Amino acid sequence: VSYELYYWPSIQGRGEFVRLALEDAGADYVDVARKPGGVETMLKFMSRNPVFAPPFLKHGKLLVAHTAAILHYLGPRLKLAPKSESARLRLHQQQLTIADWLAEVHDTHHPIGNGLYYEEQRAESLRRAREFRKNRLAKFMNHFEALAGEPFSYVHLSLFQMIEGLRYAFPLTMKKMESKVPRLVALHGDTAKRKRLKIYLASPRRIAFNQQGIFRHYPELDA
Amino acid sequence: VSYELYYWPSIQGRGEFVRLALEDAGADYVDVARKPGGVETMLKFMSRNPVFAPPFLKHGKLLVAHTAAILHYLGPRLKLAPKSESARLRLHQQQLTIADWLAEVHDTHHPIGNGLYYEEQRAESLRRAREFRKNRLAKFMNHFEALAGEPFSYVHLSLFQMIEGLRYAFPLTMKKMESKVPRLVALHGDTAKRKRLKIYLASPRRIAFNQQGIFRHYPELDA
Repeated sequence: VSYELYYWPSIQGRGEFVRLALEDAGADYVDVARKPGGVETMLKFMSRNPVFAPPFLKHGKLLVAHTAAILHYLGPRLKLAPKSESARLRLHQQQLTIADWLAEVHDTHHPIGNGLYYEEQRAESLRRAREFRKNRLAKFMNHFEALAGEPFSYVHLSLFQMIEGLRYAFPLTMKKMESKVPRLVALHGDTAKRKRLKIYLASPRRIAFNQQGIFRHYPELDA
Repeated sequence: VSYELYYWPSIQGRGEFVRLALEDAGADYVDVARKPGGVETMLKFMSRNPVFAPPFLKHGKLLVAHTAAILHYLGPRLKLAPKSESARLRLHQQQLTIADWLAEVHDTHHPIGNGLYYEEQRAESLRRAREFRKNRLAKFMNHFEALAGEPFSYVHLSLFQMIEGLRYAFPLTMKKMESKVPRLVALHGDTAKRKRLKIYLASPRRIAFNQQGIFRHYPELDA
């Protein structure tokens, strides 16, 4: 049975962390909402099932929502995680920390609420982004720098995506910061060279970063 | 081997969701940081191990961080979750949605950053709390209202805690909202009557809500 991924079709967003795992593993999957009429299919499914938000994955009868839970489920099945409970739990914790990190990236441009445009919360974004750049970013980077030597897993794919996204959103900040996290930078470079991933990244299946996603480039937030 | 929970000793915070599960199950556990010198023990452990933030749980050689991951691990062991992977995953997703909800509650009084006092981000808090009350709170409540009839699990204990905390933080808002989520209100009441939980809630082990925790009562945010 092939995997069915449900996520917004026009952004990388949270769904991209799942796409990277499926693509790197060469898994048989359908990116449902990117098919014609797919968004309607996704919304209809959500209205009838207990899903709070995309992304979610269907695999046979199983339904899994939340990026980190999806990767926890897929990990051993895609050979991107060991099978033992302790090793899986260890990776899952790391993925949950990445989820928190990603939420903080999102909130740099949406500190007041999802229901408002960036332009309606620009003043607050300037403050929040400053706090993120000055205090939070290094804390997350240093945490994962210490873990960067571990055996390859889906967590590496997610860290690759974090670095990609942060370089897009905060190029000046990252330029200053990267020399302090050489192992993380090397992990990013090594991951980008993986055979199937490289093909995916160059394909039209890889949506470009844009100003509707989680990683957005507002120069004033990177000052 | 008894469980060792590590969390800040003066607040309910995220650790309370784990405490409720351990207490309701009558589990043998130590709340390490509440012992004399315990905070130092916790901080020392964190400096030597890959833990991003409390709470974390030690069980023999196993180390689990992140509230939802801890409950995922404890669930079947405490008989607060079934043993099948699909059932466990289903509860885990719900707990991850609760984690997101809780983070949004936290951000009503800290929309700019953890490193600043509430008083330094009061103006932004007024806006963020308004968005939360108007748009987000009902979305989460309705989601769980639809799930409130499921068999008892650690998720029920966490929903009990959400209702408790929201009543403390947003009494006026909750008064208006509760009639719309009768099943969730009933779930809260039924849970509060559980034998071991009731004893715990009346004991000194239950820390009172206070203005350092995640649920805080600032009347201006409940207007």
